[in-house]
Amino acid sequence: MSSTRPYCAAADWGTSNLRLWLLRPDGSPIRELRSEEGLTKVADRNFAGVLDSKLLELGAPEDLPVIICGMAGSRQGWVEAPYVEAPAALADVLQHAIRAPHPARDVRVLPGIAQNGGSHPDVMRGEETQLLGLGERAGERTVCMPGTHCKWVSLDGSRVTGFTTFLTGELFNLFSSASLLRHSVDPAARVMPDNADFLQACRELTAEPDQLPARLFSIRAASLLQGLTPPRASAVLSGMLIGAEIGAARKSFQSANLVLVGAGRLGQLYETALAMAGFAVEIAEAEGLVRSGLFAAANSFWPSPVSSAA
Amino acid sequence: MSSTRPYCAAADWGTSNLRLWLLRPDGSPIRELRSEEGLTKVADRNFAGVLDSKLLELGAPEDLPVIICGMAGSRQGWVEAPYVEAPAALADVLQHAIRAPHPARDVRVLPGIAQNGGSHPDVMRGEETQLLGLGERAGERTVCMPGTHCKWVSLDGSRVTGFTTFLTGELFNLFSSASLLRHSVDPAARVMPDNADFLQACRELTAEPDQLPARLFSIRAASLLQGLTPPRASAVLSGMLIGAEIGAARKSFQSANLVLVGAGRLGQLYETALAMAGFAVEIAEAEGLVRSGLFAAANSFWPSPVSSAA
Repeated sequence: MSSTRPYCAAADWGTSNLRLWLLRPDGSPIRELRSEEGLTKVADRNFAGVLDSKLLELGAPEDLPVIICGMAGSRQGWVEAPYVEAPAALADVLQHAIRAPHPARDVRVLPGIAQNGGSHPDVMRGEETQLLGLGERAGERTVCMPGTHCKWVSLDGSRVTGFTTFLTGELFNLFSSASLLRHSVDPAARVMPDNADFLQACRELTAEPDQLPARLFSIRAASLLQGLTPPRASAVLSGMLIGAEIGAARKSFQSANLVLVGAGRLGQLYETALAMAGFAVEIAEAEGLVRSGLFAAANSFWPSPVSSAA
Repeated sequence: MSSTRPYCAAADWGTSNLRLWLLRPDGSPIRELRSEEGLTKVADRNFAGVLDSKLLELGAPEDLPVIICGMAGSRQGWVEAPYVEAPAALADVLQHAIRAPHPARDVRVLPGIAQNGGSHPDVMRGEETQLLGLGERAGERTVCMPGTHCKWVSLDGSRVTGFTTFLTGELFNLFSSASLLRHSVDPAARVMPDNADFLQACRELTAEPDQLPARLFSIRAASLLQGLTPPRASAVLSGMLIGAEIGAARKSFQSANLVLVGAGRLGQLYETALAMAGFAVEIAEAEGLVRSGLFAAANSFWPSPVSSAA
């Protein structure tokens, strides 16, 4: 039996999860691993030890180089990779990668991007690697990356010209489980993109995003007065929050050319909402982008893929 | 020693607090009591017993009538006083009071007001009594009642034509103690109305209330990138939330004649914010209004104040 030596390992190491791939010289994955050993679960800051044990599980050579993105590069992570300042070319992210201390491997950690000038400071760490994975294209694009903290990014070619973080996913969780609305909303309801309550609330708040604070309580009132059920209330809340996000974002982000990074049900909710708001939407898949971005970064550090037979 | 028999007792009985007064025939308070025996702390639904024991503490006669507002009239309270539907004359509230079961006293519980028509349902229970306490005046007024759940009300003479509840106080508590922002915000900081961070954030969000979801995360980013301290972050968050509320509200509520119901620091923050937004503000004090409203209601039930010497 023969096996090709992997080109490199690639990791997205966040606060609560680790995703790890062995990549071929062409960037395709050989094997992958998902673990809940996020950074906060690493004892005694033994990041190198945890990484090695996971790479051993995947059968990686002991000297295989590793490229990492995510919170591993934060101040509380393995090694701080200070933010690159926006506006920034994505190539700047590669140039500011930091080597993490490791006895045997070449381990590089990618920095995030900070928006420090102006009155609306913001940060990203991990999403810059997805942007790298999008590949170069001329002209202006908007990238929307839904999740707990949804990032909207303006790209001009491969240059990040500005971005904004919306807490939409976190707000949904907070409102549906910790606010007065918890009595009315079923946080576990699976809202589908053709849900009429979702669509109506989304359309209304996209048109009048300033009315979000004036509408939240109406969910509670509708359950008291009109028998709005908890699953329906969940659809209304989801529509309000996504609608208000898009209504606010379209003032600052161009709508002609938008890449939506997201799969699954949440991606579909955003796709529907963005289309209603007049955005021309192209879909990309988050995990594929991270891997592509990490591979692109690896190629900048280790330009000649080594291929050998074991 | 001689004492005048009180005209009636008046209570604002909410979920977590009870305030109780003995009133003279002219409506002025003889004695008062504040207790944390809110409705949720009453065992075995013994509301009459708890009320009697508090009235005994105040030295009230055993047959003294009692007028009550607040959540005591909700479905989960002592006796349900179903909502009056807006638009509603405040006199309708009096006509729909409900007698609570009591072996010796005449106890009346005032209903709240519901806004059930249209697409923005809302409810109030307790605030209608403060509106009663405002007294009649011709013409249109806006009433703003800050708190955990801030009510904005449109009055035309003594008619409630519409109202909206903003969760502003609850949002501040949630964001500063349960969201990602908790790492950056000191929820206990005492923000003063001349605080420059408060004023700037408030002015910005009053002008662009739709940008609230796009600005929340900047508080976290400013603490990471610019050393924004937790007390300053608290002022920014407070300014953002109050500014966004006022920016949203002024689309629906007239600004020429506004009564702000609120004392203390929170009232001052609103007073400053409302003035910046161009509202002509007159101040009223919440507790005095509740008492006046309860007295006005009592007069409608028991029109001839009994005065006797004991």
